[in-house]
Amino acid sequence: MTEHPPDAEMMNRALREAARGLGRTSPNPPVGCVLVRNGEVVGRGAHLRAGEPHAEVFALREAGVRAWGATAYVTLEPCSHFGRTPPCADALVAAGVARVVIAALDPDPRVRGQGAQRLSQAGIAVTLGMGEPEALRQQAGFRSLVTRGRPWVTYKYAMTLDGKVAALDPDGRGEANGAVTGAEARARVMAWRNETDAIAVGRGTVQTDDPRLTTRGLEGGRDPRPVVFDRHGRTTPAARVMRPGTVLVTAPDTRVPRHEAAGVEVVRADTLPEALTKLGQLKVGTLLLEGGPTLASALLEAGLVDEVRALVAPKLLGAGLSPLTAPVRPMPLAQALHDVTFEPLGPDLLITGLLHKIPRLDARGA
Amino acid sequence: MTEHPPDAEMMNRALREAARGLGRTSPNPPVGCVLVRNGEVVGRGAHLRAGEPHAEVFALREAGVRAWGATAYVTLEPCSHFGRTPPCADALVAAGVARVVIAALDPDPRVRGQGAQRLSQAGIAVTLGMGEPEALRQQAGFRSLVTRGRPWVTYKYAMTLDGKVAALDPDGRGEANGAVTGAEARARVMAWRNETDAIAVGRGTVQTDDPRLTTRGLEGGRDPRPVVFDRHGRTTPAARVMRPGTVLVTAPDTRVPRHEAAGVEVVRADTLPEALTKLGQLKVGTLLLEGGPTLASALLEAGLVDEVRALVAPKLLGAGLSPLTAPVRPMPLAQALHDVTFEPLGPDLLITGLLHKIPRLDARGA
Repeated sequence: MTEHPPDAEMMNRALREAARGLGRTSPNPPVGCVLVRNGEVVGRGAHLRAGEPHAEVFALREAGVRAWGATAYVTLEPCSHFGRTPPCADALVAAGVARVVIAALDPDPRVRGQGAQRLSQAGIAVTLGMGEPEALRQQAGFRSLVTRGRPWVTYKYAMTLDGKVAALDPDGRGEANGAVTGAEARARVMAWRNETDAIAVGRGTVQTDDPRLTTRGLEGGRDPRPVVFDRHGRTTPAARVMRPGTVLVTAPDTRVPRHEAAGVEVVRADTLPEALTKLGQLKVGTLLLEGGPTLASALLEAGLVDEVRALVAPKLLGAGLSPLTAPVRPMPLAQALHDVTFEPLGPDLLITGLLHKIPRLDARGA
Repeated sequence: MTEHPPDAEMMNRALREAARGLGRTSPNPPVGCVLVRNGEVVGRGAHLRAGEPHAEVFALREAGVRAWGATAYVTLEPCSHFGRTPPCADALVAAGVARVVIAALDPDPRVRGQGAQRLSQAGIAVTLGMGEPEALRQQAGFRSLVTRGRPWVTYKYAMTLDGKVAALDPDGRGEANGAVTGAEARARVMAWRNETDAIAVGRGTVQTDDPRLTTRGLEGGRDPRPVVFDRHGRTTPAARVMRPGTVLVTAPDTRVPRHEAAGVEVVRADTLPEALTKLGQLKVGTLLLEGGPTLASALLEAGLVDEVRALVAPKLLGAGLSPLTAPVRPMPLAQALHDVTFEPLGPDLLITGLLHKIPRLDARGA
């Protein structure tokens, strides 16, 4: 009898397939599928864009008749409803797949276990939960949209070991430019931008840095949608980021005709939760918050930051800007991160953690 | 032929012997010695207090006649001069030791290679540099005193992932109490206190926290000497730290009769470099700087901080105090740490690094 690769290895391959769709599938999830027969991969597929076929369909097409008796590894429960494409659960049954290994159930109320149930009822062996943590991470944006109607927000910042994200200008008032971290960390940020639906910045960051917020230098990269939070529309329409497709979030009564003339889409909202809900309606599933401290503090205080990625450079600055400036609260009420990871990146260190659970079937992460 | 443990393993044993003397030998260095004959340890010794015998003497005593033909592993070059004890190099020669492995040369101008030379001239095989990095770390205080006349200063702080060492009080003005890190990190701080000659704090830390600065809860621990930097002598003599043996650093003309009545030793200095030189004269070889930000910023700006140990707790506070508040300088002029290490400590992370090289034979680290 031949030794077959274990389920975990095959699910990892499916997760790698799914990763190809990160930042490209909203409001759909990135999904990967691998079909394995007698230990051999006979089909692979990924969902790469909303409206295009699901991962299972690509994998079944590649496998053809070899799908008969195969095991399917899918990073998300196969759908059981007619959307823009027919149900994948039915396609797996029709192809004669013998077993389906699923990383995570689909929180969409039209599926939510019904896809797995349909497979079971057709006599297919179903295994649930293999590789679920990684699948949840890949699908955080989709899951946030489906269960909370707003994007999964990740605050990314790069700080010195004394906790400064930017220097003060020589007068000690505003910010001054200057990279905090090294090349490896900057490359990682480019990779994150490539995998996120949108990047958020506040007015101060646009004024100080005039950033492009692109994935420049990244082969095969595509630019995320910039979102500028600027209640009173004071950022200049001449800023690099003010281009067609960019979203400007303002107060309800703010008039920004010059920004609109530049092709900027204006989202008007009274509160931050309302603004994020409207971004969700624009199919922003993952939002990478790149600063500055004022916007980040406001979103954190409103309970709207889900994840943190802190790049720490081993150097000391002295005076400077902090990654968070509010609210005032005692140390025991500091917000603890969970699922914390540490990773050296060149000379720097990446520390990540979650403030909220990634929704599994409802908004509370359950 | 028997396989003998490699030199590195035996030097590690000598380093572990030396570690017993950390914080207890100033102005002398902590030194360890292991005597090995035919792969078997026949003698061990450590220098445990100034005025008591050196490590080599203890090891030779234990070994007796078995020192003949043995290899000696010593973490510091054996002395070649008559101090309070006779030269150890001569004792090793007299005992018939065949080979001496030395981690680091002694920067003391009365030794500085002459101990190793005396061994060579007596026909003993000498190996230099085995385990030197760890030996230099153990001897940083001694080496700093000998070559620079001031202590090796390590700034230790515990901060949240948004770079805050303390919360603000509810009015947003002063500091408020509250532990930043978990039990494992606090235990490590106690171990550091046990290994340092003195602990430095500023006036603000005494006023806010009224710390004891002891090694409470640590079995076999001994308390380091507290040093309070308070230019104008404004800290209350009733503070817990104001006890016999504590050092109060003030301006030259500050009068603190009530502190002196409490047994506090007053060091008067006009500048921080002068203050550290006077602490060196008091045999403070290692100074653990435990805050606050004002004192740390002043010492850093004066170029007097040698090492940093940052404990990072994976949580977000918001508003709060930064580990450093000065000077104002652009990001490219931030001071880079070298020999950086990362170590998880329970839920927290320890990041260490050096701002200066540990002196090898002169003050520049050469």
